[in-house]
Amino acid sequence: MRTINLDHLSATPLLPEVQDAMIEAIKANYGNPSSQHKIGDRAAQALEQSRESVAKLLGCEVPKQIVFTSGGTESVNLAIKGVAWANQEKGKHIVTSNIEHNAVLRSLRRLKMMDFQVTSVPVDQYGRVNPDHVAKAIRDDTILVSIMHSNNEIGTMQPIDEISEVTRGKKVLLHSDAVDSVGVVPVHVKKLGADLLSFASNPFYGPTGVGGLYVRPGVKIWPLLDGGVQENNKRAGAENLIGIIGMGAAAELAMRDMDSRIAHVKKLKEKLLRDLPGYIDGYYVNGHPEHSLPNLVSISIRYIEGESVVLMLDDEDIAVSTRSACAAGSLQASHVLLAIGREFADAQGTMVITFGVDNTEKNIDLFLRALKDSVKTLRDISPLYSKAAGG
Amino acid sequence: MRTINLDHLSATPLLPEVQDAMIEAIKANYGNPSSQHKIGDRAAQALEQSRESVAKLLGCEVPKQIVFTSGGTESVNLAIKGVAWANQEKGKHIVTSNIEHNAVLRSLRRLKMMDFQVTSVPVDQYGRVNPDHVAKAIRDDTILVSIMHSNNEIGTMQPIDEISEVTRGKKVLLHSDAVDSVGVVPVHVKKLGADLLSFASNPFYGPTGVGGLYVRPGVKIWPLLDGGVQENNKRAGAENLIGIIGMGAAAELAMRDMDSRIAHVKKLKEKLLRDLPGYIDGYYVNGHPEHSLPNLVSISIRYIEGESVVLMLDDEDIAVSTRSACAAGSLQASHVLLAIGREFADAQGTMVITFGVDNTEKNIDLFLRALKDSVKTLRDISPLYSKAAGG
Repeated sequence: MRTINLDHLSATPLLPEVQDAMIEAIKANYGNPSSQHKIGDRAAQALEQSRESVAKLLGCEVPKQIVFTSGGTESVNLAIKGVAWANQEKGKHIVTSNIEHNAVLRSLRRLKMMDFQVTSVPVDQYGRVNPDHVAKAIRDDTILVSIMHSNNEIGTMQPIDEISEVTRGKKVLLHSDAVDSVGVVPVHVKKLGADLLSFASNPFYGPTGVGGLYVRPGVKIWPLLDGGVQENNKRAGAENLIGIIGMGAAAELAMRDMDSRIAHVKKLKEKLLRDLPGYIDGYYVNGHPEHSLPNLVSISIRYIEGESVVLMLDDEDIAVSTRSACAAGSLQASHVLLAIGREFADAQGTMVITFGVDNTEKNIDLFLRALKDSVKTLRDISPLYSKAAGG
Repeated sequence: MRTINLDHLSATPLLPEVQDAMIEAIKANYGNPSSQHKIGDRAAQALEQSRESVAKLLGCEVPKQIVFTSGGTESVNLAIKGVAWANQEKGKHIVTSNIEHNAVLRSLRRLKMMDFQVTSVPVDQYGRVNPDHVAKAIRDDTILVSIMHSNNEIGTMQPIDEISEVTRGKKVLLHSDAVDSVGVVPVHVKKLGADLLSFASNPFYGPTGVGGLYVRPGVKIWPLLDGGVQENNKRAGAENLIGIIGMGAAAELAMRDMDSRIAHVKKLKEKLLRDLPGYIDGYYVNGHPEHSLPNLVSISIRYIEGESVVLMLDDEDIAVSTRSACAAGSLQASHVLLAIGREFADAQGTMVITFGVDNTEKNIDLFLRALKDSVKTLRDISPLYSKAAGG
């Protein structure tokens, strides 16, 4: 039996058209885009064609404002560290939210070890940042605000356009980690007003290890990778051309199919939330009821361990996640769930279900039945649950 | 007519077996190696298998000492900046040579902007570093020595084993940029004694944008990319699995075929150097006559512009380079050629010819004939040449 993938945030499957584009690129045997001869020219053309597709997906009119990177993590590191170092003479203070991805959090933690200061604004019970809080957190020595576009654990989307009004007014740069939004929901850099915006290819059916950073012209930024003059002098190193060609193809498909994809996953999300009470009780739905990714459901199930459910469902060939794959291996409770007010124990019982084009309503039925069984089994052996049930 | 590729240092063609491995990986549609379920397990297995192949190629017994990166440039940046930042409490002084790749030079220039100090040791007329010079350059506050294994413009190979004796004796870490050596000539991290060693997949018929860093256990290093816990906590971000699988396949082939490949390119190099005087005069052969890459010939031709020869040969469908592809786009004279004592004008007339398994002796004949014509044409219009010829 084929695995039912309800963990599209870890990685989406490569669509056939994306596979074809990458296989064609492998067979074409492109050279190094920076070489000075025809072999290099051919490679450079393929590279720039992908850059155009990706730029279009972001509503960015000038393709060279897109810097290709080895994925969302590098993009975020480049944006935050690159801006911090290049602008440190103006100040060493950065504002962020307390539900950011580890790539943001740990980049900032690294900068703190280099004498930068960070203010983290809180979120409400739905995980939303209040732009007024951002305004209040900005100081004279603030050089950067970094707020994610959508959250990878609870799906909540931030009012980046309102936050960018604040940062523009205060002449502070705004970076947005939009890794889980780009290619999934409409993201237009101009409309959002972000100065820097991070994205990756794998949330929209492109390969892992490929992504990019939009950089508004005039933004002072140091490369994170120093060396050659590639990527408009913002990121040295020979590009991963085959991966980038895959991302370009995936970007074209994302533009073409975005509306139908959103309709599809929304329907699945609504079905899951509608049917769920018929299968289990004692759970919270996390995230904002309205401003939320259409392909993500986050639920905290009381008196169970999410990790155990993941393993039990895996035995049934159903892939889900307790949180982002990047956080797997670390055993701490999710800072995101604690930030929205979940108790430590409930945070541990969280499941993140993310849908894709390959999912069907039948997948949801199978998932719910398997979830019901897992939760029952786990609660039957839970001392906390029997105590709660008894009391 | 198919292009004759005599610029294998820019990028080698993907061998059929490497293509097959990558195409298979694309079709297998692996997920994210960090996911907690079966889709992730399958991906993690493929990742670790490639790590084993690459580790074996480097004579490294413990695969997890290999950190995968997005290529040689990231590997060098990680090694130099990561070690510098993690060890800055011990000191802020670094020793290097003055013929390093731009990835090394510019990483060090970046660190200088962060109050690090750099001493650059000279090379002899063949481009060799004298280990005694390294010993003398090391101070009490020296934390790192970075000396390349082989030079990408003149092919000279350094006595890394002797240099590592010096650094071990002085308790200073040694990094070696072995990007143009690994997979081309035998490189054994243990025998060399380097604490960190950078490599990339494209010099040995793997894809561009994929590489890695060997890190000896116990070396203190900060990740350059902060975020998830991937790559043994040394490099965050979802891996470029398809590219890494390609590198793994290329590593296996490199081990199997290294001797025959070396014999093949050596024969071509010897033929070129033997036949060259019959075609042109007024040139220097750069690099060490013995300690040199077997696949590289560097010649500085007097009274011509190397860039013009590249373009003229390109019209004849012959790809060569004046210097590394990473330096294309920058118009300065090569610091490497100036360091070995070439005059500025002669440095500009340099051609770097690099061979691969796809080259034949006939390719060399065609190249030499085309080179002769180009040089004649260019010298006929060169005022310097007519002056020299007249005088």
